[in-house]
Amino acid sequence: MSRYIKPAGQAKFVDRYTKKMNELLVDLNVHEGSVKYGLMGAPLSKPSISHSGASMAPGAIRQAMGSYSTYANHTDQDLRDTQIVDFGDVVMHPTDIVESQDRIYQSVKDVIQTHNPEYFILFGGDHSVSFPSIKALHETKGKVGVIQFDAHHDLRNLDDGGPTNGTPFRRSIENSVLKGEHIVQIGIRDFTNAKAYADYAVKQGVKVYTMQDVLQDRIESIIRESINYLKKRVDYIYLSVDMDVLDQAFAPGCPAIGPGGMDSQTLLTAVQEAAKHPMVKGMDIVEIDPTLDFRNMTSRVASYVLFSFLKSKDLKI
Amino acid sequence: MSRYIKPAGQAKFVDRYTKKMNELLVDLNVHEGSVKYGLMGAPLSKPSISHSGASMAPGAIRQAMGSYSTYANHTDQDLRDTQIVDFGDVVMHPTDIVESQDRIYQSVKDVIQTHNPEYFILFGGDHSVSFPSIKALHETKGKVGVIQFDAHHDLRNLDDGGPTNGTPFRRSIENSVLKGEHIVQIGIRDFTNAKAYADYAVKQGVKVYTMQDVLQDRIESIIRESINYLKKRVDYIYLSVDMDVLDQAFAPGCPAIGPGGMDSQTLLTAVQEAAKHPMVKGMDIVEIDPTLDFRNMTSRVASYVLFSFLKSKDLKI
Amino acid sequence: MSRYIKPAGQAKFVDRYTKKMNELLVDLNVHEGSVKYGLMGAPLSKPSISHSGASMAPGAIRQAMGSYSTYANHTDQDLRDTQIVDFGDVVMHPTDIVESQDRIYQSVKDVIQTHNPEYFILFGGDHSVSFPSIKALHETKGKVGVIQFDAHHDLRNLDDGGPTNGTPFRRSIENSVLKGEHIVQIGIRDFTNAKAYADYAVKQGVKVYTMQDVLQDRIESIIRESINYLKKRVDYIYLSVDMDVLDQAFAPGCPAIGPGGMDSQTLLTAVQEAAKHPMVKGMDIVEIDPTLDFRNMTSRVASYVLFSFLKSKDLKI
Amino acid sequence: MSRYIKPAGQAKFVDRYTKKMNELLVDLNVHEGSVKYGLMGAPLSKPSISHSGASMAPGAIRQAMGSYSTYANHTDQDLRDTQIVDFGDVVMHPTDIVESQDRIYQSVKDVIQTHNPEYFILFGGDHSVSFPSIKALHETKGKVGVIQFDAHHDLRNLDDGGPTNGTPFRRSIENSVLKGEHIVQIGIRDFTNAKAYADYAVKQGVKVYTMQDVLQDRIESIIRESINYLKKRVDYIYLSVDMDVLDQAFAPGCPAIGPGGMDSQTLLTAVQEAAKHPMVKGMDIVEIDPTLDFRNMTSRVASYVLFSFLKSKDLKI
Amino acid sequence: MSRYIKPAGQAKFVDRYTKKMNELLVDLNVHEGSVKYGLMGAPLSKPSISHSGASMAPGAIRQAMGSYSTYANHTDQDLRDTQIVDFGDVVMHPTDIVESQDRIYQSVKDVIQTHNPEYFILFGGDHSVSFPSIKALHETKGKVGVIQFDAHHDLRNLDDGGPTNGTPFRRSIENSVLKGEHIVQIGIRDFTNAKAYADYAVKQGVKVYTMQDVLQDRIESIIRESINYLKKRVDYIYLSVDMDVLDQAFAPGCPAIGPGGMDSQTLLTAVQEAAKHPMVKGMDIVEIDPTLDFRNMTSRVASYVLFSFLKSKDLKI
Amino acid sequence: MSRYIKPAGQAKFVDRYTKKMNELLVDLNVHEGSVKYGLMGAPLSKPSISHSGASMAPGAIRQAMGSYSTYANHTDQDLRDTQIVDFGDVVMHPTDIVESQDRIYQSVKDVIQTHNPEYFILFGGDHSVSFPSIKALHETKGKVGVIQFDAHHDLRNLDDGGPTNGTPFRRSIENSVLKGEHIVQIGIRDFTNAKAYADYAVKQGVKVYTMQDVLQDRIESIIRESINYLKKRVDYIYLSVDMDVLDQAFAPGCPAIGPGGMDSQTLLTAVQEAAKHPMVKGMDIVEIDPTLDFRNMTSRVASYVLFSFLKSKDLKI
Ligand SMILES: [Ca+2]
Ligand SMILES: [Ca+2]
Ligand SMILES: [Ca+2]
Ligand SMILES: [Ca+2]
Ligand SMILES: [Ca+2]
Ligand SMILES: [Ca+2]
Ligand SMILES: [Ca+2]
Ligand SMILES: [Ca+2]
Ligand SMILES: [Ca+2]
Ligand SMILES: [Ca+2]
Ligand SMILES: [Ca+2]
Ligand SMILES: [Ca+2]
Repeated sequence: MSRYIKPAGQAKFVDRYTKKMNELLVDLNVHEGSVKYGLMGAPLSKPSISHSGASMAPGAIRQAMGSYSTYANHTDQDLRDTQIVDFGDVVMHPTDIVESQDRIYQSVKDVIQTHNPEYFILFGGDHSVSFPSIKALHETKGKVGVIQFDAHHDLRNLDDGGPTNGTPFRRSIENSVLKGEHIVQIGIRDFTNAKAYADYAVKQGVKVYTMQDVLQDRIESIIRESINYLKKRVDYIYLSVDMDVLDQAFAPGCPAIGPGGMDSQTLLTAVQEAAKHPMVKGMDIVEIDPTLDFRNMTSRVASYVLFSFLKSKDLKI
Repeated sequence: MSRYIKPAGQAKFVDRYTKKMNELLVDLNVHEGSVKYGLMGAPLSKPSISHSGASMAPGAIRQAMGSYSTYANHTDQDLRDTQIVDFGDVVMHPTDIVESQDRIYQSVKDVIQTHNPEYFILFGGDHSVSFPSIKALHETKGKVGVIQFDAHHDLRNLDDGGPTNGTPFRRSIENSVLKGEHIVQIGIRDFTNAKAYADYAVKQGVKVYTMQDVLQDRIESIIRESINYLKKRVDYIYLSVDMDVLDQAFAPGCPAIGPGGMDSQTLLTAVQEAAKHPMVKGMDIVEIDPTLDFRNMTSRVASYVLFSFLKSKDLKI
Repeated sequence: MSRYIKPAGQAKFVDRYTKKMNELLVDLNVHEGSVKYGLMGAPLSKPSISHSGASMAPGAIRQAMGSYSTYANHTDQDLRDTQIVDFGDVVMHPTDIVESQDRIYQSVKDVIQTHNPEYFILFGGDHSVSFPSIKALHETKGKVGVIQFDAHHDLRNLDDGGPTNGTPFRRSIENSVLKGEHIVQIGIRDFTNAKAYADYAVKQGVKVYTMQDVLQDRIESIIRESINYLKKRVDYIYLSVDMDVLDQAFAPGCPAIGPGGMDSQTLLTAVQEAAKHPMVKGMDIVEIDPTLDFRNMTSRVASYVLFSFLKSKDLKI
Repeated sequence: MSRYIKPAGQAKFVDRYTKKMNELLVDLNVHEGSVKYGLMGAPLSKPSISHSGASMAPGAIRQAMGSYSTYANHTDQDLRDTQIVDFGDVVMHPTDIVESQDRIYQSVKDVIQTHNPEYFILFGGDHSVSFPSIKALHETKGKVGVIQFDAHHDLRNLDDGGPTNGTPFRRSIENSVLKGEHIVQIGIRDFTNAKAYADYAVKQGVKVYTMQDVLQDRIESIIRESINYLKKRVDYIYLSVDMDVLDQAFAPGCPAIGPGGMDSQTLLTAVQEAAKHPMVKGMDIVEIDPTLDFRNMTSRVASYVLFSFLKSKDLKI
Repeated sequence: MSRYIKPAGQAKFVDRYTKKMNELLVDLNVHEGSVKYGLMGAPLSKPSISHSGASMAPGAIRQAMGSYSTYANHTDQDLRDTQIVDFGDVVMHPTDIVESQDRIYQSVKDVIQTHNPEYFILFGGDHSVSFPSIKALHETKGKVGVIQFDAHHDLRNLDDGGPTNGTPFRRSIENSVLKGEHIVQIGIRDFTNAKAYADYAVKQGVKVYTMQDVLQDRIESIIRESINYLKKRVDYIYLSVDMDVLDQAFAPGCPAIGPGGMDSQTLLTAVQEAAKHPMVKGMDIVEIDPTLDFRNMTSRVASYVLFSFLKSKDLKI
Repeated sequence: MSRYIKPAGQAKFVDRYTKKMNELLVDLNVHEGSVKYGLMGAPLSKPSISHSGASMAPGAIRQAMGSYSTYANHTDQDLRDTQIVDFGDVVMHPTDIVESQDRIYQSVKDVIQTHNPEYFILFGGDHSVSFPSIKALHETKGKVGVIQFDAHHDLRNLDDGGPTNGTPFRRSIENSVLKGEHIVQIGIRDFTNAKAYADYAVKQGVKVYTMQDVLQDRIESIIRESINYLKKRVDYIYLSVDMDVLDQAFAPGCPAIGPGGMDSQTLLTAVQEAAKHPMVKGMDIVEIDPTLDFRNMTSRVASYVLFSFLKSKDLKI
């Protein structure tokens, strides 16, 4: 073809030295050897209690990745040779929500069994996607422990509304996919939960760090404490990052925004610190509604959550 | 009626354990016994110097309350049995601004005299609503002292434009409703005031903490110092919370936004600290224009300002 | 209470002669005698193929009604004594979509059986709400005929995605709730349907007026022709008004917008013309997503769709 | 100064042949000889019943004028040598609404008496500005007749809310500034008025063309009929153009939008037709809230309303 | 891969019978045989006189195509077997505007010479892209005639600002790519041009239909007249569709919006009528700035402009 | 003229004691004596790699200045007698980008040579304006050193895309306008640069403080260190403030937003600290796109950047 023509949507100026983070995403067939990083999108938000467009987040986060380069200045790390196999997105059923969640479970399990990525990343969707994801990992990888960043417990009862985005960890416990004592919740905020669920957390042995704890202690200490707590109890540590753990000023695009949450830097430091540990091998990033966001800001933070994970894993090579 | 039908606008899913903060608002006739918390809306913003839709804030803050639950995790406080008598909103006159302010005065006075709420909360409106509110309290409750959170002095002269939102504390002083030395201003910012009004503050003995003071000292100390200063001088301490004391990143919906202000957490801590003292019995929250806001963020912070007040009062039981 | 205080949200200025259309909405217990007009909201949009916030439309249309007065100048009709019993909204299940649709069916049926409104109005929601509504009417009122205003056939197969918003009339036919020849579709647009469904319409005997037909003929003629066609075949004529029959310039808030549709005046004339006939007794208004709209414009047109219906019925007294 | 520098805000590229409509606006001291066109801004919207930013419209319309050129292709008219003396804007009082309206009256009267522009244009503001404007003209120019383009009568009683934007023509009648039979209202819409005020219009002899009349007749005929009706009764004809006479699709920035109004072309034709008559010498353009508008669209139509006026007056030279 | 996973961004629900218009776009290597339809994107808007994001339009129009199906109901045409070879987008130089325009010329010429599509479509970009496109066609296809839909002449002098979006037809004439008498301009509006350029049009023999002409005559007649006029003079007729020929209510996303333009239906009819003639073989669609648009509305109309072209060409098979 | 009329756009209420910061801006001919502060606007953003409306920033920042008063409370400084000569904006060429940059160079040089302002401020525009500005200062004021606040190095090669906004410091080095060791970069962020350019910075001796450095040290120390480093090496210190050094929560209107940047207070403190040194005499503020911003927030911070500079210079009197 003519020298100046590129495929539709790809005709952007790039200089010869710059590689964008979204270019690390490769198709499975392009990839060679074993899969280090595997990524999947779960565009599901119909389970949400309130109106949510989180189904559009997998696309929005991938797009945000395209705004950033592969190089981390402070540590002089260039990720340009990193490959993240992008398995794609799970097709959702338009009117059967439980079926959709089951498709996520099936797809994660298939991918783990077939390609066995060393690290697995899931872009939600609302928080209900964590249950099928963790269930698949539980069945393939052994005992899973979770560090959940969230303003909410997500331990609501399932009888009243079925498997909504308020239930993934309750559902995990009730289905023996997780034990309560294998869950660490960080960033739980006042006036975002019912007492009944805080009580349930206590009863089930869920370890909880409130936002007040986060403000009083260094996040690195909390993370290290959490890792130390989990590492003797489980085989595989999974980070479940609900972006609404952030203050609304830093994550304006979450459905359940509010004041008094973390700033972006604290969350990024937390994920980076956690990812330093070799047992931390899975992560989901959930609860971004790009239709509510301002300039894709929340998806931009989400992309940095992934970059923070990658930076620590890269150092481990 | 059919089992699945609820009145218009109330057909939202709720699980059986969750109670929302707006459910604490009750009509006077529902309430029994003496009134602990009384709330009124003053939907007035025509006095504002610049264009303002703060008249819509009482509704926006009440709506924001509906996004949050009654339970405070860190201190394990459940406010579900708290009742806030919602007296409703004052009807404003469409073309007579002074009459509107007088109606606020009359309404606050009526409510205090008739129902005598232990704690009184006013949702503005612009800051001009503080004068009628404080005047009514001054006439019914004794000597009032004010802790004003604000980027601005609000001590402009009344000759040039009448009782605008830039004048409530000048008007209070000139009408002997407040003495200058009974006012503490916290968060005053550079480039938001004329020197003449800073000089007037000094002359009248108004106690001023600038934002630089706030950044250099712990907010809890400033509040305790302010309370100690006021408690020997007055009978009743009133918090006047102009949301523009916050940095524009945290309160994007105030008419007079700017950089260099407080973050949300600092303001919430301040109000919580102040409300610990039994003499702190009244509060207004003003200067939110929901038509300018992003996702009702500023009203969400405002609702947490109220929750912080309630949390401290609840602990005192 | 104090003379200037009104309940929260009701403190708006009104002059003594003006009554707003939303004031016609009354609770069942306020109403006396037989119910002439009955209204219900079906806040359901999870069945939609594309992301939709149509669940917020019942509230948005009621709110839009509050912007308009009861008086129609041209015909000198004052509807101020009209009462519309507002039965309220159906509570939706957060994760079971078919259950939600069934609740609509149950609720419509209950309301018809218990209160037997002479005219029944349903505010969707997405177009999937028409099936349960028509099914309930079919079971209580006899053979139903439908005049559907729509850019789309809504005759998609149910196997691929279940009862989405693209299927209500297919589902009605397949469930023997409607016969194909009892459906008249007006405003069908190019490039908004698959040929398979146009063919299905032909095969089932659905009567179709494309937008080109609408542009070439007077809408009053098309409506009269449609009524004449249906009135000998059915017992009860139902208008199903999918707002996307309008051009995107006139209905910016529909999920499936596009150019080349009707202008508002044509739709209002059509509904007014149809409602002149005594057999036209039911109507739904669907496919408005207030989160996408500009200044609630589409819900404002929807409120006028209702007013047009009322105007004709009022003339018949 | 350096050859490439222009005063702040004026450094836009222009080609040598293009002159923009805003360049026709000149200061009084620049102008020579008698004033043909005089323009004034009345940035007042605090009298509005509902929240309005119409005070920003004078600036928005002037800015919109900067988007258009001086040449009218179809009639080959170039207005580049036309001068419109821009007297500026009236300074409003921030808290005394009646005083603000009086200042408009004083300012219009001063300008008429001192400079006697042949044609006088007023940019509102809300519709309450018409009373002081017409009063000033009535006192200086003789008996005034008005052709009002509006969805609303604006004949509300003054007792309930004072001189709001719903009252200018009632106030004019009650103050003997206008007689009812000297008012022609065009575009009155269903469900935008109370019956009491339609009755008042009839009683006072106001001539009314509803939107249905406009749809059924050619606008040129209605205008000619209106001019013929007024020209024998009054000395001076004034057009009062409330932009909400337009359908919401064409004037999205009016506070009181709704469906079923005029399209832009009809209004422009109407004004052009009216301005052909030599007795049509004054005009106001009101009820644009630029804070609600989309891309200043409504102010753009407003600027064309002025251009249509100018085109006809220019032809008369 | 797992059965429910699709490549990123493609996991949308589709039913088995529905094909979307964007699926007609195929890569060159997928296509077999001679190329009937060829499409190229020219993402260039830096030449624009005013700020423009028209460089984003090629993507926005392609995306809009994904909202529509292949079937045209009224004429029972299914375009599902049509293939449009999408050559992709031209890569623009970030700081050399003339170079960017030259790359468009080179790319169009290469594509015409190498693949010789029977019909050639270019998505701008601002209107400056028409010159390089027409120049390439002029050099490969013979004498080109243009039907330009536009509010503006686009005949500005090139000395003052170089090859801006206000100059493509002047530049074509001055470079002997077009003769003035081979240009027909339809929809030229008052107050959007300088007299000098209207005079230039007359002098060069450009045939002009103003908006007033369009309102007074049927668009089909104007198109037939234009075709008849051009067909004896040129070898190849090219439609240049500047979307700002539409009224701002129908094309809110053009940089130069205004009232008094065409409605969408008129433009679609015009393009459909023109495309019936076999000599009409090329088309560009320009001046859409997706960053200014509302819900991609203007790109949606643009996609229908293409569909109208295709419909007529399809009938000719 | 009438006593209540002011020139168009100036009819705002002001009280007698308040002076706004934009009133400090004066025309050259108004000013007397030598010029202390000189300001110029460079409305250029066509060189930007990604779409940018930074050309509108000079107007937006000047407008933001109008929201703030002349008085700094904490230090009791009133700047009301300060004059800033506003030289105006440079007229850009619409299609020749290099010419536009050269016009900035010529204009800065002319202004420096003719009026020799003691302090020179440039409002961009994108960052490409820094090269012509610094070049002019280099030629008139001697050896220039730069403290650049930026997330990015701006050291991209010039071969690939010419003088874009990613190249100003590379271009300065390659043209011997700056030496690498005369540049200090503060706030460089991970994943915003290519490794090649970080390496180039090292090779050229550019001094770099990453955001991690900023988070770990006090900003005052970093600034003092930077000043001490530069003051022995150069004659004139210039601050180049790319607003994207701020976190996206604080500068939502920069084209290249992202998480993990400075908060506003840190930047303001840095500029204030730097401006204390007498060698700091020039500053530009760049990379604000007002079309992307929320409520002009980023321009508001920019105005405070200027105020911080002025505050320190004022203290030095
Ligand atoms: Ca969660
Ligand atoms: Ca959460
Ligand atoms: Ca205040
Ligand atoms: Ca304030
Ligand atoms: Ca439908
Ligand atoms: Ca439809
Ligand atoms: Ca009016
Ligand atoms: Ca009106
Ligand atoms: Ca053009
Ligand atoms: Ca054009
Ligand atoms: Ca930079
Ligand atoms: Ca930068």
